[in-house]
Amino acid sequence: MTGDGEKALVVLSGGQDSTTCLYWAVDRFGRGSVSSVTFDYGQKHRIELDCARDVAAAAGVSNVCLPVDTFSALGGDALTDASVEVSDDTDEETELPVTFVAGRNLIFLTFAAAYAYRHGMRHLVTGVAQTDYSGYPDCREETITALQKAISLGMDREFTIHTPLMHRSKKETVELAVRLGALEAMALTHTCYRGRRPPCGDCQACRLRAKGFSGAGVRDPLLDIG
Amino acid sequence: MTGDGEKALVVLSGGQDSTTCLYWAVDRFGRGSVSSVTFDYGQKHRIELDCARDVAAAAGVSNVCLPVDTFSALGGDALTDASVEVSDDTDEETELPVTFVAGRNLIFLTFAAAYAYRHGMRHLVTGVAQTDYSGYPDCREETITALQKAISLGMDREFTIHTPLMHRSKKETVELAVRLGALEAMALTHTCYRGRRPPCGDCQACRLRAKGFSGAGVRDPLLDIG
Repeated sequence: MTGDGEKALVVLSGGQDSTTCLYWAVDRFGRGSVSSVTFDYGQKHRIELDCARDVAAAAGVSNVCLPVDTFSALGGDALTDASVEVSDDTDEETELPVTFVAGRNLIFLTFAAAYAYRHGMRHLVTGVAQTDYSGYPDCREETITALQKAISLGMDREFTIHTPLMHRSKKETVELAVRLGALEAMALTHTCYRGRRPPCGDCQACRLRAKGFSGAGVRDPLLDIG
Repeated sequence: MTGDGEKALVVLSGGQDSTTCLYWAVDRFGRGSVSSVTFDYGQKHRIELDCARDVAAAAGVSNVCLPVDTFSALGGDALTDASVEVSDDTDEETELPVTFVAGRNLIFLTFAAAYAYRHGMRHLVTGVAQTDYSGYPDCREETITALQKAISLGMDREFTIHTPLMHRSKKETVELAVRLGALEAMALTHTCYRGRRPPCGDCQACRLRAKGFSGAGVRDPLLDIG
C-alpha cells in the first residue's frame, strides 16, 4: 500500500481502461480516498460523460466533470472536429491516427494535477498503456514520466502518476478487471469510436476491446445491453 | 540563428515580459516566421486580451486567442476567482502567492504546443523568468526543461521552448526591450494585478515593473498614457 492515508484522483473517461483503473485505485487506496475527474472537451460522443458518471456511481466514488473548451477551438482531429470523420486513417502529414488529439493526455493530467493540488491530493491515476497503444505517443511510459516531473516541479508538489495498465495487453487488462470485481461495471462503459452503445464492433477501438475479452476468455457484458 | 526557415509561436499575455519576448522572436526568427497565441482563461482583467492584440498588431505579428474555461471551473485563485481578492498574500496552506494559478504556464505551453503541432511549428517562446520570479514554481528553468521533454515525447515532435528572460532581472529585461526596439510597445502592455491602466503603482506586479525601469534608467511609456 503506497497510498496509506493518501488520496488518489482517477482520470475517468468512461471507457474500459479508465474504469479498470478506478477499481484498481479503490483496491489500492480505499474507496473513501478515491475520487474521479472527467473532462468535457467537446467530444462528439457525449455518451462518454454519462458513462463516466455511471461508472463512478457504481464504484461508489465521486465524479467531477471539468470543461475544456480549447480542443474544439484548436480543431483538426476526428474526436472533436465535426469536419473530420472518425476512421482508422492516419494523418498524411504527421503519420499519426486521425483520432489523435495532440496534447490531450498531457492536458488532462495537468488539469487533474491542478484539481488535486487544490484538494490536497498527490496521487493521479490514468489508464494509458503503451502495449496495444494505438499509436498515441502520449500513452508511452517515458511521456508520463516526463510529465510527472513537469507537474511536480511546476506546482511544487511531489505528484505520482500511476499507470496500472502501462505494460498490460488488452487481455491482461480484462483479467485485471475481473480480479478487481470490475467486470459488471464494464456494461456501463463506452469504447466505440463511432459512439455506439451497443458498440459497432468494427472500428479500431471496438476491435481492440473485443480482442482483449476474447483473449481473456470472458464475455464482454457490454454486448448484452439494450 | 537557430530558427533558419523555422517558425516560432510566442505565448503572449499582453504583459511586459511576453511583449519583450515577441520582439525577441521577431529579431531571431524574422517577422514573417513568428505568430502569437493568447489565452482567454477567464482572467478578471479582460484588458489583457486587448493589450495582447494591440501589441501583436504593433509588432506586425498575427495573434490567435484561444479559450480555456477550465481554470474558472477549478477556482480558488485570485486571478480567476471573484471570491479571492488580488493581494500580495500567500496561501496559508501552500505558502504560494494567492495569484498562483496552479498549472497555468504548463497548460498554456502545452496548448501552445498543440496549436504549433497543427501548424507545423516547433519553436515556442515564453516570457517566464526565475530571476525575480514572484514565487511561481512553474517559471523555473527546470520546470520548463521537464515540460519541453513531456510535450516533445507526447506529440512526437522535437519542440524547443525558448525562455529569453529566464535569467534576466527586470532591469535586464527592460534593457533587452530597448535594444530590440520594443520600448514604444510597452505603452500598449498591461502589468497591474489590479487591472488598472495607467497602473496602480502599488501592487507587487507594478512595483516589480517600476523597479526594472528605474534600474535601467528608462522612463516607462505606460506611465504617460491617458
